[in-house]
Amino acid sequence: MLIVLLTDFGNRDWFVSVMKGVILKINPNVNVIDLSHEITPQNVKEAGFILWNAYKFFPKGTIFVCVVDPTVGGERKIIAVETKEHIFIAPDNGILDFVLSEVDILKAVYVENKDYFLENVSSTFHGRDIFAPVAGYISRGVDLSELGGEAKLTKPENLFVDVFNLGDYAGEVIYIDRFGNLITNIKPKAEIDGEVKIKEYVIEKISKTYAEVKSGQLVALINSSGLLEIGVRNGNARDLTKAGYGERIFLKVKKI
Amino acid sequence: MLIVLLTDFGNRDWFVSVMKGVILKINPNVNVIDLSHEITPQNVKEAGFILWNAYKFFPKGTIFVCVVDPTVGGERKIIAVETKEHIFIAPDNGILDFVLSEVDILKAVYVENKDYFLENVSSTFHGRDIFAPVAGYISRGVDLSELGGEAKLTKPENLFVDVFNLGDYAGEVIYIDRFGNLITNIKPKAEIDGEVKIKEYVIEKISKTYAEVKSGQLVALINSSGLLEIGVRNGNARDLTKAGYGERIFLKVKKI
Amino acid sequence: MLIVLLTDFGNRDWFVSVMKGVILKINPNVNVIDLSHEITPQNVKEAGFILWNAYKFFPKGTIFVCVVDPTVGGERKIIAVETKEHIFIAPDNGILDFVLSEVDILKAVYVENKDYFLENVSSTFHGRDIFAPVAGYISRGVDLSELGGEAKLTKPENLFVDVFNLGDYAGEVIYIDRFGNLITNIKPKAEIDGEVKIKEYVIEKISKTYAEVKSGQLVALINSSGLLEIGVRNGNARDLTKAGYGERIFLKVKKI
Repeated sequence: MLIVLLTDFGNRDWFVSVMKGVILKINPNVNVIDLSHEITPQNVKEAGFILWNAYKFFPKGTIFVCVVDPTVGGERKIIAVETKEHIFIAPDNGILDFVLSEVDILKAVYVENKDYFLENVSSTFHGRDIFAPVAGYISRGVDLSELGGEAKLTKPENLFVDVFNLGDYAGEVIYIDRFGNLITNIKPKAEIDGEVKIKEYVIEKISKTYAEVKSGQLVALINSSGLLEIGVRNGNARDLTKAGYGERIFLKVKKI
Repeated sequence: MLIVLLTDFGNRDWFVSVMKGVILKINPNVNVIDLSHEITPQNVKEAGFILWNAYKFFPKGTIFVCVVDPTVGGERKIIAVETKEHIFIAPDNGILDFVLSEVDILKAVYVENKDYFLENVSSTFHGRDIFAPVAGYISRGVDLSELGGEAKLTKPENLFVDVFNLGDYAGEVIYIDRFGNLITNIKPKAEIDGEVKIKEYVIEKISKTYAEVKSGQLVALINSSGLLEIGVRNGNARDLTKAGYGERIFLKVKKI
Repeated sequence: MLIVLLTDFGNRDWFVSVMKGVILKINPNVNVIDLSHEITPQNVKEAGFILWNAYKFFPKGTIFVCVVDPTVGGERKIIAVETKEHIFIAPDNGILDFVLSEVDILKAVYVENKDYFLENVSSTFHGRDIFAPVAGYISRGVDLSELGGEAKLTKPENLFVDVFNLGDYAGEVIYIDRFGNLITNIKPKAEIDGEVKIKEYVIEKISKTYAEVKSGQLVALINSSGLLEIGVRNGNARDLTKAGYGERIFLKVKKI
C-alpha cells in the first residue's frame, strides 16, 4: 500500500514527519512517500496542478493526502474521493479541481467520523490529527462510506485552454518549475506548429526539444504533461522574461 | 522497524543518504524516514525542540538518530537512551533535553563499543561511522547494554514556563516555523484566556483558531503542541514583528 | 531491493515523485530512496562527485539512477553499468566518471530497448519515461544485456591529485558543502602533514579534527572521504575565503 503526501509544510519543521509517524502507528506496513512539501504557503492552485501532473503515474490503490489548507479550523469540510485508480483526501477548497476535471468519481464523502481521527483534534494541525490517521485507516481497508455522508461534487470545467483547430488562443502561465520553465494552461490535442507570444517576446515555432534552438534562446514546446511550455535552452525563462504566475500567453496555431 | 533521522546535514550533500546506505546495509528490512535535516547548522536546541514536537507520535520501538554535533571529533560522548516507547541515539550535548524532561528513562548508556561502528571511524563524520551503524544494529535487536557503560543522566527541568494560575508570566520565542509563526516556551496546563505582549504589540485574547481574527492581524493561540504561539492570519508573524529566537513574550492570564 | 535517485530536479516540483510512482508501479516491493535532488541545475560534475562520496556505503545490488541531463532529447545515449557491487543508470555524459575511475566494470550497455520504457516517451522528461521504468525492471531481475548493445567505456583517469610523496602539489576546490567546507581533489594516500594555501590564506598544518584550531579559524584536514578539505571551526570557509568551485589550492607535503 502506498500513501503519497502533498503539503505546503516544508521540509524543515516536524509537520510532515509527524504525519508519517501517525500513519505508521496505524499501519506499519504502508509505504509513505512525498509528492512535494514545498508548495508556496497556502497556494491551493499550485498544489492542485502539481497533483495533476503526478497522480496518473502512481499505482492503482495509491492514497493521496493533500494538505494545503488556509482555512483549517474554520468551516471548510474535508473530502475523500475514490476513483477507479486512486483515493484522494483533501480539504474541500479546490485543491482537487485539476484531477476531478478528468477522472470519474466512484465515491465521494465528507470526512466526519471522529472514530478515525486522533483523540484530541487541534484547531490548527488537521494534517496530523485528521488527514494522517484517516489515510492510515483507509490503507488498512476502511471504506470511504464509513468516514461520513456523501459529498456531491461538481466536475470543474475549463481549467485548460484546449486547442483543436487552427486559429488564435490565449492562456496564461500556471506554473514555473525549478529550471525557470514557464508552464501554461494551453493544451493542444494534437501535434501543432505556430507562433507564441509572451510579453514582448515572439517565438516563431513549436519545437520538439530544447536542442532545436541555440543556447540562451527562448523555446516553446509541448511539455511532458501535454501543455505548452516556454523555456530557455541552457537557461532560465523566468529570469529572462520576468514573467510570473498569470502572465498572458498568446498562441497562433498555423498547423495541426 | 522504524528509524527516524534528525540532522543539520541539509538535503543537498550526500551525508543523509550515506547514513541510510549504512543502515540498510546492516538491516535491509528497516524503514528509514526523515524528521528534518534543515536544522540551522549546529543549533542543538532547535533540533531538540523539533524532536520534542514529533517523537510522541511515532510507533513504539521507533529509533531516533539525532546528529547535530558541533563538537564531533572532540571529547563529547554519544548516548543511547531507552524509554518505554522509544530509543534515542544522540551526542551528549543537550539535544535530548526537551524529550528527557518528560519521559522515564529505562536505560541509558554511552556508545563506546567499536564492534558496532564502521571499521574506519573518521574524525568528522560520526553520523556515517558511528550513529548509523549503531542504529542499524539496534534495529536488529542489539541491546543497549552491549554498547557501553551506563550513562547517568539528570532530568532537565524548567525548559517550559508552566502556566497553572491567573497572573503574569514571561517566556520567549523558541522556534519560528515555515509560516513565520512564533512558538514560545509558555505552556498552559488548561484552557486560558488573557493578554499577550511581544515587542510593541499587544494581543488582547487567546483565540482558538486563526479564523477568529481578520486577515493580516496578529493572533495568539495555544498551538497543536500545547504551547503559546503568535501568528498572523494569512500572513507571517516573523515578518510583521521582526521577532527572532529569544524574543521576550509576556502573558497576563485573566481566565483559566 | 534498493533504488537510489540522484537528480537536479529539486524537491518542489513533481519530477522526483513521479519517478517513484513509475518505479513502484512496476515493482511495488522496491525501496526507493533519495541521494540528492538539489544538484545545481545541469551540473554533471557536481552530481558525479556526490555519487562518488556515497555509492560505496550502499548495499550490494543497489541500483543508482542518475538524471542530470542537460542534453535530454538530443543525441546523447543512456548507459547502464554493472559492477561487482552495484548497478548505475545514467546519461553518457560523464556523470559516472568519478565512480568508473575506481570500479571494475562487469557489464556496460546502451539503454535502447523500448520494451522497458513508458509507452509514450516525451522528449524532455526521460527521468520519468526511460530511467524510472528501466530501473524498475532491473529491480525485478531484467538483465542489462536485454536493454541494448554493449557500451565500450574508457576508465577516466587523473580525476584526483594523488599524493604519495613529500613535495608540492596543486589542486582545486571541487565541492562546497552545506557548512561551507571547501572540498578539494587532493587525495593523500597516507597520513600527511604540511602547509596549505588558498588565495591569500596559509594554513600551517593538517589537523585531525576541527577542535584543534580556535573558533573562527581556518583548518585543513583530510575529510571523511579521504580528500583535503578546508573549513572554519564553528564557521564557514566559503564565506570567509570567498572561494568558489575551481579555486586553486596549493599543498606542500612536509611529512608523510
